[in-house]
Amino acid sequence: MTRNGASVHPTSVVSPDAELGRSVTVGPFCVVHARVVVGDGSFVDSHTILGAPTAGFYDDPATYVPEPCRIGAGAVVRSHTVIYAGVEIGERFECGHRVTIREGTRIGEAVRVGTNSDLQGNSTIGRYARLHSNVFVAQGSTVEEFVWLLPNVFLANDPHPPSDTCTIGPTIRRFAVISAGASVFPAVEIGEGALVGAMALVRHDVPAHSVVVGVPGKVVGSTADVVCHDGRLDRVYPWWTHYRRGYPEGVLPLVDEPTAESEPTQ
Amino acid sequence: MTRNGASVHPTSVVSPDAELGRSVTVGPFCVVHARVVVGDGSFVDSHTILGAPTAGFYDDPATYVPEPCRIGAGAVVRSHTVIYAGVEIGERFECGHRVTIREGTRIGEAVRVGTNSDLQGNSTIGRYARLHSNVFVAQGSTVEEFVWLLPNVFLANDPHPPSDTCTIGPTIRRFAVISAGASVFPAVEIGEGALVGAMALVRHDVPAHSVVVGVPGKVVGSTADVVCHDGRLDRVYPWWTHYRRGYPEGVLPLVDEPTAESEPTQ
Amino acid sequence: MTRNGASVHPTSVVSPDAELGRSVTVGPFCVVHARVVVGDGSFVDSHTILGAPTAGFYDDPATYVPEPCRIGAGAVVRSHTVIYAGVEIGERFECGHRVTIREGTRIGEAVRVGTNSDLQGNSTIGRYARLHSNVFVAQGSTVEEFVWLLPNVFLANDPHPPSDTCTIGPTIRRFAVISAGASVFPAVEIGEGALVGAMALVRHDVPAHSVVVGVPGKVVGSTADVVCHDGRLDRVYPWWTHYRRGYPEGVLPLVDEPTAESEPTQ
Repeated sequence: MTRNGASVHPTSVVSPDAELGRSVTVGPFCVVHARVVVGDGSFVDSHTILGAPTAGFYDDPATYVPEPCRIGAGAVVRSHTVIYAGVEIGERFECGHRVTIREGTRIGEAVRVGTNSDLQGNSTIGRYARLHSNVFVAQGSTVEEFVWLLPNVFLANDPHPPSDTCTIGPTIRRFAVISAGASVFPAVEIGEGALVGAMALVRHDVPAHSVVVGVPGKVVGSTADVVCHDGRLDRVYPWWTHYRRGYPEGVLPLVDEPTAESEPTQ
Repeated sequence: MTRNGASVHPTSVVSPDAELGRSVTVGPFCVVHARVVVGDGSFVDSHTILGAPTAGFYDDPATYVPEPCRIGAGAVVRSHTVIYAGVEIGERFECGHRVTIREGTRIGEAVRVGTNSDLQGNSTIGRYARLHSNVFVAQGSTVEEFVWLLPNVFLANDPHPPSDTCTIGPTIRRFAVISAGASVFPAVEIGEGALVGAMALVRHDVPAHSVVVGVPGKVVGSTADVVCHDGRLDRVYPWWTHYRRGYPEGVLPLVDEPTAESEPTQ
Repeated sequence: MTRNGASVHPTSVVSPDAELGRSVTVGPFCVVHARVVVGDGSFVDSHTILGAPTAGFYDDPATYVPEPCRIGAGAVVRSHTVIYAGVEIGERFECGHRVTIREGTRIGEAVRVGTNSDLQGNSTIGRYARLHSNVFVAQGSTVEEFVWLLPNVFLANDPHPPSDTCTIGPTIRRFAVISAGASVFPAVEIGEGALVGAMALVRHDVPAHSVVVGVPGKVVGSTADVVCHDGRLDRVYPWWTHYRRGYPEGVLPLVDEPTAESEPTQ
């Protein structure tokens, strides 16, 4: 089936009130709800749901009116993913399989989200942020541009569960790196360019460009002191001095910029 | 397609031996096997499997006879969920996306299970228990009423893997709270109203109303001593003194009941 | 629909260039791409994707040519699983729900992979290895025969993320057991028959038959010294002295072989 230049697999269920851009491909067994907008040239893989209904639908389907779900041009949405109504995603989004993105999530351009990740909504993800597999982003989190969240990272938002006293998740400042399996407590701020070690449990704010490890997490130094054990790198951090794969020219700070570490040119 | 007052999407594959109650909605691309019973007014979202076959089916499909799978009235089963034959679920069940519930699980009324959670079967989940995202419940676990299991909680059942010596999971007594990422070892009992901290590893029984943190987990005090750091709560625990959202009137202990902490009125 | 002796549900989308062996069963709502080969007697459950396209497809669908995806005879592939083009799997494979297996993964005979596990590709999994639920295997990992990876085990491959300096994951030698929630750092070797404790963080090589626990992980003794606390086992390790369930006769070392521990007869 083609529709406005989009190619929709005949098995898929697409609302007449969804807008599919030019050259969009929708694979088999998808459900695309009303008020979904998918930008030109995007791929929506099989078994995916776009514009999934929020809780209000189950309370009263007859009166439920969905918020829009907008996905920018050039997206790759892999299979079994669920993106809710009330989500805004910039251009060139890419995600793995079985990602969940709930209402109130605002995602900048060129963000990547890995397989099985679970974004609980009401959060902001900055441009070029990269979330790996099975990352959990609690409601009310802020993830700035160029942040890395490695697999199994957990951003929390309730300091004494269950409660309604804190609906604010952590803030991860730009260029920071949270290593695999680390958890960040509610309202904690991870400073710009900071590094959190694998499986660390971070309960307090972390200064910019510092390194935190352990349970509970402790600041053990500066990212400038991190050494590459196998000697293959002269300088490990800031990471963009050696790692620029997948970033367009000009988007990362210049490698030979003398003030790059403390004042990224973005 | 309508069937006995149920609304079944025409793409779904529903056994003639399944029983769908009045006003049940079955979304697209579902598989509902024989001997499934879904109570009145339930929503079964797309890409869901109810009554999934147990291991015996693959050994010999010709002679396999499924156990019943019963889901009470008023359920919301979100997309890509798999509920096996041999599962019993009470009324007003609600679950996130991609939940797995295997055979031999018995679930009380008004239980909630979060996205990606994996219940391995032969376990009991008490009424009003709330399991968040990506919770793992090993076979032989007991989770009593009003328990909270936060995201990534892990309940184990094998003390020296791989073995057959212990098929008993932990017992989590009523009103207890297990914080995000915590693990509880086989056969360990978490006492009534106890609090386990985030990412703790609990290897020994925990007394009622005590607080355990760390790896390995150690008792560090009583829930009565937990202080709200931002001052927004006079008293953090017992949690129902300030948090009652989603519980019907009368189901939680009275807040001003003087003996509420030690003797909940349930 | 039958095809070459295979039984394919009429809702499924199967490429004419896929080869399904005799008595293969393909459930509803599956997508089977070109160059997929499924061995005789296999079950492919509903909502599954075989031969999923690699990144090159999204760059240029017109010129994309998939690598083969070969699954040996007697497989049970449970629902919502995604197996990529460029994967080779031996006979009698069995997996849980929603498993992801990316390109470049080579899997030996009789391997089991649990629900929600995420194999990132370019890795080798030896015969009879057993991976439980939600295991993450980074690119470049080696898991030898008869290894056990318990739930939530994480195998990492980047020592200072993000980087391209290390694309080598850990090597887990045969008969080793990694307990639930443990993480193993890049390029680390876990010796034959070693035991890693629950939630340990292993940063350095582990000698054969030793026990590592904690964060960071430390060697605390030999597997020969592990005692069964409830007295139900005379000897806990090597595990095959008491646990042989699901292994065919003759495939594990003899229990009464005096040199079984140091020199398995495989």
